[in-house]
Amino acid sequence: MTYEAIQFRGSLSGEIVKKISTHQPPKSDEVVVRVTHSGLCGTDVHYRKTDMVLGHEGVGIVQEVGSACTNLKIGDRVGWGYPNFTCGLCSVCLQGQDVYCPNAQYFGIADYEMGSLSSLVVRKEQWLFKIPDEMSSEDAAPLMCGGATVFTPTMDFVKPYDRVGVVGIGGLGHLAIQFASKIGAEVVVFSGSEDKREEAMKLGAKEFYATKRVDDYTTFGMKSIDRLLITTSAKLNLSVFYPILSTMATILPLTVSDGELTAPYMPTLIQGHKIIGSKLATRHMQYKMLEFAGRNQIHAMVEKFPMTVEGVNAAVHRLQSGKMRYRGVLSWEY
Amino acid sequence: MTYEAIQFRGSLSGEIVKKISTHQPPKSDEVVVRVTHSGLCGTDVHYRKTDMVLGHEGVGIVQEVGSACTNLKIGDRVGWGYPNFTCGLCSVCLQGQDVYCPNAQYFGIADYEMGSLSSLVVRKEQWLFKIPDEMSSEDAAPLMCGGATVFTPTMDFVKPYDRVGVVGIGGLGHLAIQFASKIGAEVVVFSGSEDKREEAMKLGAKEFYATKRVDDYTTFGMKSIDRLLITTSAKLNLSVFYPILSTMATILPLTVSDGELTAPYMPTLIQGHKIIGSKLATRHMQYKMLEFAGRNQIHAMVEKFPMTVEGVNAAVHRLQSGKMRYRGVLSWEY
Repeated sequence: MTYEAIQFRGSLSGEIVKKISTHQPPKSDEVVVRVTHSGLCGTDVHYRKTDMVLGHEGVGIVQEVGSACTNLKIGDRVGWGYPNFTCGLCSVCLQGQDVYCPNAQYFGIADYEMGSLSSLVVRKEQWLFKIPDEMSSEDAAPLMCGGATVFTPTMDFVKPYDRVGVVGIGGLGHLAIQFASKIGAEVVVFSGSEDKREEAMKLGAKEFYATKRVDDYTTFGMKSIDRLLITTSAKLNLSVFYPILSTMATILPLTVSDGELTAPYMPTLIQGHKIIGSKLATRHMQYKMLEFAGRNQIHAMVEKFPMTVEGVNAAVHRLQSGKMRYRGVLSWEY
Repeated sequence: MTYEAIQFRGSLSGEIVKKISTHQPPKSDEVVVRVTHSGLCGTDVHYRKTDMVLGHEGVGIVQEVGSACTNLKIGDRVGWGYPNFTCGLCSVCLQGQDVYCPNAQYFGIADYEMGSLSSLVVRKEQWLFKIPDEMSSEDAAPLMCGGATVFTPTMDFVKPYDRVGVVGIGGLGHLAIQFASKIGAEVVVFSGSEDKREEAMKLGAKEFYATKRVDDYTTFGMKSIDRLLITTSAKLNLSVFYPILSTMATILPLTVSDGELTAPYMPTLIQGHKIIGSKLATRHMQYKMLEFAGRNQIHAMVEKFPMTVEGVNAAVHRLQSGKMRYRGVLSWEY
């Protein structure tokens, strides 16, 4: 059978518009999901002028499964993020690094009809994840992209005895603080103003520094930072952090931005620093994140919006204004 | 007893000058070494206007050992590089990463009298390395700094099944080609012109690309590069290499240079590239390098110069002109 879906799409003006669309029955490797929740991520705002269904932090209930599907069944609660498909055959996939697959179908690139700001999506079973029972859908949605983005570098590069700097508290940063503190690391937060100090400490930070109008971070008089997760929406020049880094520090820029990555050259060599690019999570790590977050009571702090054209536009404006604390979640249930 | 030494020092004019100096008897943790050979490295040229003894790729014979020394004895053939002392107590040393010790005494910083362009040095026993019997002093000297600089990142980040790009063939690059090919990796050399093609292939390269006047390296039509060792004397913009890198590539800039490190920002994240700073080798890795190089017939290609004021100046000019193939070695025996 075909399915009708209410979709919220970008448009030339930047306003989000509502459209009714018809989906064909699922192919053998596809699953039909009735969307219940969707997080709203900075990259949705980037795409708001493109005629595509926005949203890539989806949660919903399986309605129908294609004939070749083996993992999911009708009624399962599932989530999804940026990727819809990876090839499973290339060298990158064979290394278990599927999220970097050069043949992938990603949100915003190959995937214009499968956004989660919708009532229904038809997606590959391959990149749909069962949500643990103990996790609410409000918690699950922001994990699908924002959580994945900070969980992987935290697990790969942060040791429990490290001092971890988290730069910026937003959709990503407020989850990074929780992940890093839940593995026992000492979390140090850098934020523009004092506004978010109390919340940062509640989330697990041990130290908080307001950086606006501070050029020289050594004036904070802090112990040096071993790993630095940069989650701000605007790209920073890494040089401001160099004087407060430990020897052989790891720098993890996660901001979505154009232009050049710049850092002091010789200090990078002499101090043996590592600057490491990463994005999202492999399927393996996406599962591990969901398990870890469920077991360790990681909770997204969300602002709730109804899944209506007014709700979606309100959420987009709120995110653009920098006032969202810390992730917008839209739902048909609100 | 005191020791007289003939030293070759930098001077304001940039000419290297000869001076006789008197060393005090060794302290308890020091060793007196009669220098036989010294490599000449780009950083010696950097310091040629400073009144200090140049040279930090030394090889010589132990003449006297301080009362607390336990590792060396008179007559041992030893080599040394940039560091003279590390504290052994700081967090970095305790991690086995002594070469990054913040309390270190390095050539050109704390160490103005211990350069290897001299007839005799008094140095800590701690950073003197016994040279394997099967290794010539001409081979050993360039390994002490140049070899160390390329050996560590090769061992840490290159897998035997990787395709390794070596950018630049000079004192470092010609050793990097050998190390990477001796571990079985596929070595791809990037050099300005065709001049060094034949030598590069003899050293172990499988492919060679002349890059002068080439803006788009995809026109080479090569398979992508997994790890990139940049050993040129001039800093490159990494962006020219990005189109030919594998997903999740590792970039190892080893050039000594001022200014900023710059790379394309989003491709670094989306491709999951790592840009990793490193310098020299820990003591552990310096020993491993000497063993590995001896066992696997790694040979420096050297131009020999007598350890005279004329010889030293000739070697410095040769290195500055970019014509050295590939490491200058000075010796009292030539």
